[in-house]
Amino acid sequence: MVNDTHRPDRVSWVESAQDTGTDFPIQNLPFGVYRRSGHDDAARVGVAIGSEIVDVGACHFAGLLHGVAAAAAEHCTASSLNGLMQLGPLYWSALRDQLVALLDADGAAYRADRRIGERILVPMREAEMQVPAAIGDYTDFYASVFHATNVGRMFRPDNPLLPNYKHVPIGYHGRTSSIVVSGTAVRRPRGQTQEDPATTPSFGPSRLLDYEAEIGFFIGPGNHLGEPLRLDEAESSIFGCCVVNDWSARDIQKWEYQPLGPFLAKNFATSVSPWIVALEALEPFRAPAFARPAGDPEPLPYLRSADDAARGAVAITLEVALRSEQMRAANMPAMRLSRASFTDMYWTMAQMVTHHASNGCNLRPGDLLASGTVSGENKDSRGCLLELTWRGTEPLTLPTGEARRFLQDGDEVVMRAYCEREGARRIGFGECTGVVLPAVAPE
Amino acid sequence: MVNDTHRPDRVSWVESAQDTGTDFPIQNLPFGVYRRSGHDDAARVGVAIGSEIVDVGACHFAGLLHGVAAAAAEHCTASSLNGLMQLGPLYWSALRDQLVALLDADGAAYRADRRIGERILVPMREAEMQVPAAIGDYTDFYASVFHATNVGRMFRPDNPLLPNYKHVPIGYHGRTSSIVVSGTAVRRPRGQTQEDPATTPSFGPSRLLDYEAEIGFFIGPGNHLGEPLRLDEAESSIFGCCVVNDWSARDIQKWEYQPLGPFLAKNFATSVSPWIVALEALEPFRAPAFARPAGDPEPLPYLRSADDAARGAVAITLEVALRSEQMRAANMPAMRLSRASFTDMYWTMAQMVTHHASNGCNLRPGDLLASGTVSGENKDSRGCLLELTWRGTEPLTLPTGEARRFLQDGDEVVMRAYCEREGARRIGFGECTGVVLPAVAPE
Repeated sequence: MVNDTHRPDRVSWVESAQDTGTDFPIQNLPFGVYRRSGHDDAARVGVAIGSEIVDVGACHFAGLLHGVAAAAAEHCTASSLNGLMQLGPLYWSALRDQLVALLDADGAAYRADRRIGERILVPMREAEMQVPAAIGDYTDFYASVFHATNVGRMFRPDNPLLPNYKHVPIGYHGRTSSIVVSGTAVRRPRGQTQEDPATTPSFGPSRLLDYEAEIGFFIGPGNHLGEPLRLDEAESSIFGCCVVNDWSARDIQKWEYQPLGPFLAKNFATSVSPWIVALEALEPFRAPAFARPAGDPEPLPYLRSADDAARGAVAITLEVALRSEQMRAANMPAMRLSRASFTDMYWTMAQMVTHHASNGCNLRPGDLLASGTVSGENKDSRGCLLELTWRGTEPLTLPTGEARRFLQDGDEVVMRAYCEREGARRIGFGECTGVVLPAVAPE
Repeated sequence: MVNDTHRPDRVSWVESAQDTGTDFPIQNLPFGVYRRSGHDDAARVGVAIGSEIVDVGACHFAGLLHGVAAAAAEHCTASSLNGLMQLGPLYWSALRDQLVALLDADGAAYRADRRIGERILVPMREAEMQVPAAIGDYTDFYASVFHATNVGRMFRPDNPLLPNYKHVPIGYHGRTSSIVVSGTAVRRPRGQTQEDPATTPSFGPSRLLDYEAEIGFFIGPGNHLGEPLRLDEAESSIFGCCVVNDWSARDIQKWEYQPLGPFLAKNFATSVSPWIVALEALEPFRAPAFARPAGDPEPLPYLRSADDAARGAVAITLEVALRSEQMRAANMPAMRLSRASFTDMYWTMAQMVTHHASNGCNLRPGDLLASGTVSGENKDSRGCLLELTWRGTEPLTLPTGEARRFLQDGDEVVMRAYCEREGARRIGFGECTGVVLPAVAPE
C-alpha cells in the first residue's frame, strides 16, 4: 500500500533533494554500495538523496536508528547489500521509515541537530559506486512479447513467437563474473561468426554489437532448495529494482545460440545501475499488469493472481540514449533512441520469481533477475538496436550525421529509468552507462 | 610431463592407500573440503589417501611443509579451495610434491616420526564432504558429438546436429545455487510440460527425470575481464577434475528450451563428487584428442593445437550405475548402466576454457565448467537415460524385474570415474551419488 513515506509534499533538509530534476528525492532513498574516492576505506552501504549519500552505518553508529531499523543497519557496514537483502521486507521497511524521518526537514533528528548532515552524508561526487551485491546467480528473462516477436521475426522468420512463449516466462542463466557497475567501459568482444551459411565461420571482433535496456530486480530472502515460492509471496523476495544493460553481440549470438541459448554473445559484460530502488518506493507507481490480448491463454494457476489486473506491474519508464565519440568531442548531449514502459511486459516480476523457483531452484539474497529487453509496441519504444534498426536495415542518424546500425567503438550508451505520475513525487533510478572500447588486438 | 610423483611403485605408509581397489593411492591425492562429523569446526581443505583425509592445514601448522608448498598450504585452512585454486600450477605442484614426500613410506618425515599420521590424518568415515569451492559461475558444455547427435535426433529429427556444432564448443550457463555435493538427495522438480502440441500445457511433477554423467573441471587463476586466454595457456587455469551429475527433467526441457536454452529443466540440482583430481595427477593418462572423422572441419586457429593429436584428451572412464529402492531393500548392488570414455569428447578441456574466455569473459578461481554428457558411439556408453532408453522407447530392466524408462522416486544414481592403464597406478575420482526424492505436494 502507499504509506506515509510516499507523501509528495514531504521535504528533506538535504537541499539537493528538492531539485525538480533530481532522481533521488526523499520519497526514493535507493540503496547502493559506495567507496570514498581516494580513500582506503572498505566499501559501505549508502542511500541516495539529492546529490548526497547517506552512510547507513554512520547513522547506526551515531545512534540515530533504533529497533528493527537498527538491526537492519547493522548489516549496512558491509561492502555488499546481501546482508540487508536477506532480512526481508519488515526490516527494509523499518529502515526506510526511520531514514525518511531522519532526512525530513520537519523530523525530530534535524530539529535536534541542524548539522546532522556532517555526520551522515557523503557527497556523491566524492564516491565511487560498486556493484551493489555479491551476485550469486544472474538470470535474464525475455518478458516483452514485443521484443520476443521482433527478434523472432529476424532470427526465425517462419516462426517468430514460439508456442511456449505465452505459457512460460522464458529465461536463461547469465554470467555473474562479468557484471559491472554503470560507468565501466565495455570491450567489444571477439568471437565466431558466420556471415553466410555457405561459408566457413571466422573469428574476429563482433561487428553487430548491441545493448539491451532492461529492468533488473534483486532477490531478498529467497527460498531453500526444493521449496518453491507461491506467487503471493514472491514480491516479499524482491528487494528492489535497477537498470540493466545486457550488452549483446548479435553476430556471435546468431551463430552460437542453438540449441542451448546465448553464451559468449552475452557474457562479456552486463552493466547495472548502482542504485537499487526499493519495491516499497515504487508503490505509488503500481499499475495493472499487461492486458493480454483476447485469445491469449490465461497463465497456468501457479502464475495467476487476482491482483494482477490492479497492481501486477510497475510503471517504470526506461529510456536509452546514445552519444558517439564525435558527439562527445562536440559537447553534444546524448541523443535519445527510445522510451519504453515496464508495464508492457508480458510477465510480472512476481511471475518471473515464482516461475524461477517453481521447480525448487533456490534463489539466494543478492541474486539478480532481469526482465529482458523492455520494448513496447511502437518503434520508438524498442529497447535495442537490433529492433530499432531492424537488424541494421533501417540505420539511425545521429546529430553529427553519423549513421548507426549497431554500436561503434567510442559510443556511449546511457540508460535512464524513472517513475512519474500526477499526485506523486517523481523518482528516478539514476543512470546505467558504458562506453564501447575497441576489441583487443589478436596476438 | 609424467614426473616422479606418478611412480607406480611408490608406497605410502597409509595402509589403506595400498588396497588395490582404492581410488586414492599416493599417486592421486585429490583435493576436497571436509568437516569433522559432529564437530563444530569450520570446514577445511583435505587430501584423500586410501580411506583417510590428510588435513593440509594441520601439515602446515606442524611445520611439515616449506617454501612454495607452505605458501600454498596457508590457503588450506579455508572452507573452500578457492584460495589454493587462484595460486596456479607452480603452487599446486609444489604442494603435491611435498604431500607425496610426506606420505611416502620411504620419506624422511615418516622415518623421523612413525606416528605422524596421528597429527595429520582424519578417517574419511568421520568426515562430511562439502562442495569443494565457492563456485562463482558454472558453465555446462555439450562436448560429446555422440550425445549431441542422439539428443538432436530425438528433439529435432529433421536437424539432429546443428551446423555450428563442429566449429563452436557449445555451452551455456548453469545455476550455481543448486550445486550440491555427492550424497545429497535430489527432489523431483515440478514444472510446465506439454505432452501434445495440440493441448494446453500443465504443471506438475516431471515424469521424465534423468541424469547426465559429465566430467567437471575447476578453474584456477583464470583471466581478467576483457583479456582472453590462449589455448596454450588454458590448462594452467585448470585446477582439476571431478564427476558431475547434471540432473535433467526432459519433459520440462522439451517445452521450455527454445529459444534461450535449458533453464528449469536443469537448475533444480547439479551434483558434484567431492574430490578434485589435480590435472597433474592425470598426467599419466593423457591421450590423443578425439580424432575428427574425415570431412569434419578443422578447429578455427584459436582452438587449434599441434599437441592435441598427442595429448589433448585425458583417458578418464566414467560409469553410471542405478540402484532402485527395491534393490536397496534387497541388498542388491547398483546395476551398471553405462561406461564411457572422456577421450570421446569432440572438444578438449583446453578448447572449452579457451573458447569460454575468447570474448573476454572472465573466468574466476573456483568456477566450474562441465563437459556435457559423456557418451560414446556405442549404446553401452550413453551417459543419460534419454539416450540409453531412446526417450523411453527401449526400457531397461533392473535385476528386480523393474523396468526403467526414466528415474523413479527412490532411485539412486551412482557415478564413478577412474583412470587406468598398463604401467601406471590406477586412480579414481570416488563417487557422485544422489537419491531421487518425490516431488513436493502442491499447496
